[in-house]
Amino acid sequence: MGRRSLRPADGLIPAFLRGDARACGRLLTMAEAGDPAFRPLYDRIFPRIGRASRTGITGPPGAGKSTLVDRLVDLHRRRSRRVGVLAVDPTSPFTGGALLGDRIRMSTASRDAGVFVRSMATRGSLGGLARCAVEACDVLDAFGCEEILVETVGVGQAEADIVSATDTVVVVLHPGTGDAVQAMKAGMMEIGDLLVVNKADLPGAERLAADVEGAIELAAPRGAWRAPVLLASAERGEGIEEIAAAIERHREFLVEGPPGLEAARRSKREAHLRRVLEEALGSMILDEKGYAKLLARSLGSSGRGPYAVATEILERVRRSLPSQ
Amino acid sequence: MGRRSLRPADGLIPAFLRGDARACGRLLTMAEAGDPAFRPLYDRIFPRIGRASRTGITGPPGAGKSTLVDRLVDLHRRRSRRVGVLAVDPTSPFTGGALLGDRIRMSTASRDAGVFVRSMATRGSLGGLARCAVEACDVLDAFGCEEILVETVGVGQAEADIVSATDTVVVVLHPGTGDAVQAMKAGMMEIGDLLVVNKADLPGAERLAADVEGAIELAAPRGAWRAPVLLASAERGEGIEEIAAAIERHREFLVEGPPGLEAARRSKREAHLRRVLEEALGSMILDEKGYAKLLARSLGSSGRGPYAVATEILERVRRSLPSQ
Repeated sequence: MGRRSLRPADGLIPAFLRGDARACGRLLTMAEAGDPAFRPLYDRIFPRIGRASRTGITGPPGAGKSTLVDRLVDLHRRRSRRVGVLAVDPTSPFTGGALLGDRIRMSTASRDAGVFVRSMATRGSLGGLARCAVEACDVLDAFGCEEILVETVGVGQAEADIVSATDTVVVVLHPGTGDAVQAMKAGMMEIGDLLVVNKADLPGAERLAADVEGAIELAAPRGAWRAPVLLASAERGEGIEEIAAAIERHREFLVEGPPGLEAARRSKREAHLRRVLEEALGSMILDEKGYAKLLARSLGSSGRGPYAVATEILERVRRSLPSQ
Repeated sequence: MGRRSLRPADGLIPAFLRGDARACGRLLTMAEAGDPAFRPLYDRIFPRIGRASRTGITGPPGAGKSTLVDRLVDLHRRRSRRVGVLAVDPTSPFTGGALLGDRIRMSTASRDAGVFVRSMATRGSLGGLARCAVEACDVLDAFGCEEILVETVGVGQAEADIVSATDTVVVVLHPGTGDAVQAMKAGMMEIGDLLVVNKADLPGAERLAADVEGAIELAAPRGAWRAPVLLASAERGEGIEEIAAAIERHREFLVEGPPGLEAARRSKREAHLRRVLEEALGSMILDEKGYAKLLARSLGSSGRGPYAVATEILERVRRSLPSQ
């Protein structure tokens, strides 16, 4: 009945801009839920986006990503950088427990106003994870986080999502991954700007690092950047400075370009908006404009194949819509 | 230069209809790749689709899904049913090795003309996995497989995909999953028509089964079907007949309806085609009709937020397109 239920977002942006962590958490919740009320708020914070360094941390379960993230947070805090951590968990419902458990532990341990930790478990619509990850990073960026670390387990679509949300991607591996190494290599080459062989004290670490080096040499070059392979032990705190330095070198490489950090980010932002629009256009045309009913009727009655029906509907929209 | 390169699909459908396994494999490859040349071929086999029983087998890594699938294949073969197995692996690049390894082993072991085994590792476009799974099942169905088993590890979007491609979903669990049980329960209730606690000889199996039973009682009912919980040991071949019988009971339940098996399948087929159309509509409007350029221009120059730009583009299409 009161103002709160009438305009629930009243006062949220001013509080957010004052640095109120609960306001930030509320915006993240709205982004995660795909709440339409988030959109105008997002547009309002949009001019403040772009100052943070964004690093994605991915790799197989058990590689030690969470521990590495904790170490990087400590390092950034010693340098008085404000840090945002986003643990994106695309693995539901079967493997959702472990990663989130870790993050909750960490956020309890480090009661530090300079660190904002958030777990996101996204389910539901296709493309939802990518949109969420981009927008959640944007919220943390506008909130004033200078270093944003996005952690996600490397399964399914998560690789592509983490690439679209961050500037630099660190792939974390560990010895003893066995037969999976071959399968990994293909994907690593495509997304890793930096490869970390964690748990370097375990047998097989040197061998894994050499294998990865070899795979990088064989892979098609991705521009002028050559992904370095670093040995580390996040558990023992070894190799962390080197990883942070390599992330910085990659960032400098991006800034120098071509195309330059700003241009690279702009094209990722366009891709993000394109996804949002594609989804919205499809729903609008099928639902509001009645093409879904046409689809159901044609499928039920015509005896034609599904692709023939889809092609006809596509043609009809194509003919009706003027070009820009 | 010759006929093959000019019209590569020549003769493929006749060979497929004669029961040529290589032609079937070729169609599956085209479906997996999202090859546009697949679409008219799919429409040609479309009238032959709908005779197979389709069962999805999902669950966490290590639950014994592959072994259970092997046992179900043996059982169906003893009953002289033609079987198609589709191992869909959405977990790339990091965990892709194990599942595929198993399937390759099985397909070598069982050189049996009545069993068609296919592994699919899909990466790339969002929604690609769902489309692939549906169309690959359709190909196997049209090829004359009477029982189709779709195996996939339960991560990310895979649950929803396996639901859209099959009639009955079996969720396989194993004792010792620990903290993940809570996380699992939510998802299981939503997708499992049948819950199997595998490795029933291990400690904790009875307890897990009781936990799952309890969770089912607490969950919101999904129509009149109550998912049974079965103990099994796929390794020892125990409980397999009971699982097959429960799958059959679920199928009879679907046939009796409401809404009836055919209606349920039709609505899944519409959802599938809707996904195909949404994607196609979005690309057509953004690329062919020039709205992507408009998007890039507006983002670069206006100082407005992304959602304001997206909303304006959506509005413009809405105004220009007549309703059906």
